[in-house]
Amino acid sequence: MPQVSERGNIMPASPIRRLVHYANEAAAKGIKVYRLNIGQPDVPTPPEALEVLKHIDRKVLEYSPSEGLLSLRKKLREYYHRFNIEVETEDIIVTTGGSEAVLFAFMACLDPGDEIIVPEPAYANYMAFAISAGAKIVTVPSSIDSGFELPPVEEFEKLITPKTKGILICNPNNPTGYLYTMKEMLQIRDLVKEHDLFLFSDEVYREFCYTGAPYISAFHLPGIEEQVVLIDSVSKRYNECGIRVGALITKNKALKANVMKFCQARLSPPLLGQIVAEASIDTPPEYMLQTYNEYVERRKFLVDRINRIPGCYTPIPMGAFYTVVRLPVDDAEKFCIWCLTEFNYENQTIFMAPASGFYATEGKGLDEVRMAYVLEKEELSRAMDVLEKALKEYPGRKN
Amino acid sequence: MPQVSERGNIMPASPIRRLVHYANEAAAKGIKVYRLNIGQPDVPTPPEALEVLKHIDRKVLEYSPSEGLLSLRKKLREYYHRFNIEVETEDIIVTTGGSEAVLFAFMACLDPGDEIIVPEPAYANYMAFAISAGAKIVTVPSSIDSGFELPPVEEFEKLITPKTKGILICNPNNPTGYLYTMKEMLQIRDLVKEHDLFLFSDEVYREFCYTGAPYISAFHLPGIEEQVVLIDSVSKRYNECGIRVGALITKNKALKANVMKFCQARLSPPLLGQIVAEASIDTPPEYMLQTYNEYVERRKFLVDRINRIPGCYTPIPMGAFYTVVRLPVDDAEKFCIWCLTEFNYENQTIFMAPASGFYATEGKGLDEVRMAYVLEKEELSRAMDVLEKALKEYPGRKN
Repeated sequence: MPQVSERGNIMPASPIRRLVHYANEAAAKGIKVYRLNIGQPDVPTPPEALEVLKHIDRKVLEYSPSEGLLSLRKKLREYYHRFNIEVETEDIIVTTGGSEAVLFAFMACLDPGDEIIVPEPAYANYMAFAISAGAKIVTVPSSIDSGFELPPVEEFEKLITPKTKGILICNPNNPTGYLYTMKEMLQIRDLVKEHDLFLFSDEVYREFCYTGAPYISAFHLPGIEEQVVLIDSVSKRYNECGIRVGALITKNKALKANVMKFCQARLSPPLLGQIVAEASIDTPPEYMLQTYNEYVERRKFLVDRINRIPGCYTPIPMGAFYTVVRLPVDDAEKFCIWCLTEFNYENQTIFMAPASGFYATEGKGLDEVRMAYVLEKEELSRAMDVLEKALKEYPGRKN
Repeated sequence: MPQVSERGNIMPASPIRRLVHYANEAAAKGIKVYRLNIGQPDVPTPPEALEVLKHIDRKVLEYSPSEGLLSLRKKLREYYHRFNIEVETEDIIVTTGGSEAVLFAFMACLDPGDEIIVPEPAYANYMAFAISAGAKIVTVPSSIDSGFELPPVEEFEKLITPKTKGILICNPNNPTGYLYTMKEMLQIRDLVKEHDLFLFSDEVYREFCYTGAPYISAFHLPGIEEQVVLIDSVSKRYNECGIRVGALITKNKALKANVMKFCQARLSPPLLGQIVAEASIDTPPEYMLQTYNEYVERRKFLVDRINRIPGCYTPIPMGAFYTVVRLPVDDAEKFCIWCLTEFNYENQTIFMAPASGFYATEGKGLDEVRMAYVLEKEELSRAMDVLEKALKEYPGRKN
């Protein structure tokens, strides 16, 4: 029998996925499972986006251009303009979700053995795309104790080798909810400029900044315009994760040409998703504001409630809709599994993502979980009651 | 400035894509361009598939499972059963088009430096996906003079090295229209079995076999069930290339687990496309038959007409909707560009794909083009009149 690839073997299976099985088993037993594990919001997709599907008058659902529909790319350009991101339509390449944008960015910039520096904890799938490209993610640590702020510039510089090709940030951050400050962004700018690096900036949560502090796009940083590779997606902002429409934005002509070869090989991004995405950009501001206000409320409630559970701590997330929580347990993954398999409180339990999956460094985040506040406040409230009870009963409780 | 990847640099830009620019310029000048260059059929998408879009009553367009919607996978299982392909629902992984199925098959089976053997001419994007995976495509030649039949087994064996991990075939074939015989398929089976290889079999054109000769799926071959990786797509059979729904089918548990890691990293295939694909499988047989008959007619017409143009020759394609044509010209790519830029006949011209792009071997296919019979007979007729005139006027004509 031929052997499967080593590449696939070394790819970490998502720790969340392993737990989905337990969650489904609990649900099958009639237990109500509060799913705070993934970024699948319960907020409805904009009605305008759903409505457009009823009016597609095409006879053939044909390939769209490999770079995406021109009309969508023009709309995206206007959309970015609202955030003072000044790009041309030809700088925007539509991708099959933000996922493909990351993959193609890596494929077009990195060769096997090349390295990129990523602050950890980080979105787990960056690792998967790096492995796909044969590249190596080197992590610079950020910690719950300092609210996940960026480590000092020296920590980055220690990691730079001749193989380093870029820095990747996610801002606002998944999983921490951290929003990089201007000082931090300028620090990254200087590093990128001095060491001739690409700056991969995943900004899919830009709509969700809660503290009044400004959202600073990588494209706002002067002097590195051609080194920035912006990753975007409509999934989170319009609650349409399933349509698979994202974008890779670059002003670098050589990079654009390289990315387009990967785009052409896969022929085109999804046509129907692009039609929906285009309609979504026209969503009235009331929809965005309502979604925003909903998250503001949930965030405030969740953070307050968590920090009042004895032994629990979460910093205040400034953006996105996640927060990393330290729990008084021996091993957060064990605790998460225990919640799904051995525990329930009045026939309810909670599904959280063990944070170890977001750290590349072995042994980090072992007492942390990520919670996504993608449920209504009332559900979050019940979920926190369940958590509090679970922590009292859990045999591996610390302190 | 950081350098883009060497991987992207070595990726060949599609020769067809380069010509699209010229075709669009000709069209802008008011010249009618007969586009035989790509497999974008003019046949309408089934009405049932378009209709289902009007009845999507979901409030949230959320992620589908990474392996695809269960209901679609069950329907696909029934569909394959009609072709005596007996697979279980869990053997079917839904992908973002056949393209992603090829990429994930390579990612999950091949490591950098690994080799696969592919009969050439071949679909150009296999090369792109191999480069993405860092793998090497080694080609075994088939020739227009022998109607693109498979070369003898010795030609394959000469190419097998310790790095060889698989054989890839496309059956019925793009670009040649060749349909592999039982004898050829058994020859491949024996090779795959003896040398412990994967057999990647792209069978997206299975509905289009015209000669009465049987379509033989790789899954029909006894004794290599766990080595077969079937590539499929709904694009061509239901004329919905833009929805991006394909499938990777394997009975090999280790491979399935490996492929699923790549699927989970990209989260999910397009939800809307899957809904359309599912409705398409219920398309009444009349639709399929009508499409089939249309291609039968076009194929007969086109092949007869080409072979009556002095100096032109095409073997009779047995399946798919392409044929490779030898032209009496110095260089087919030059000729194709000339047709688009310097020639027109009564304000009409023709857009063909230079076949050199389908050969990995330098210097092969230089006087060949691929034509897709994706236009109505009347249009094909006018296109052939234009071709005949062009060949008379072309300064680089041979003979």
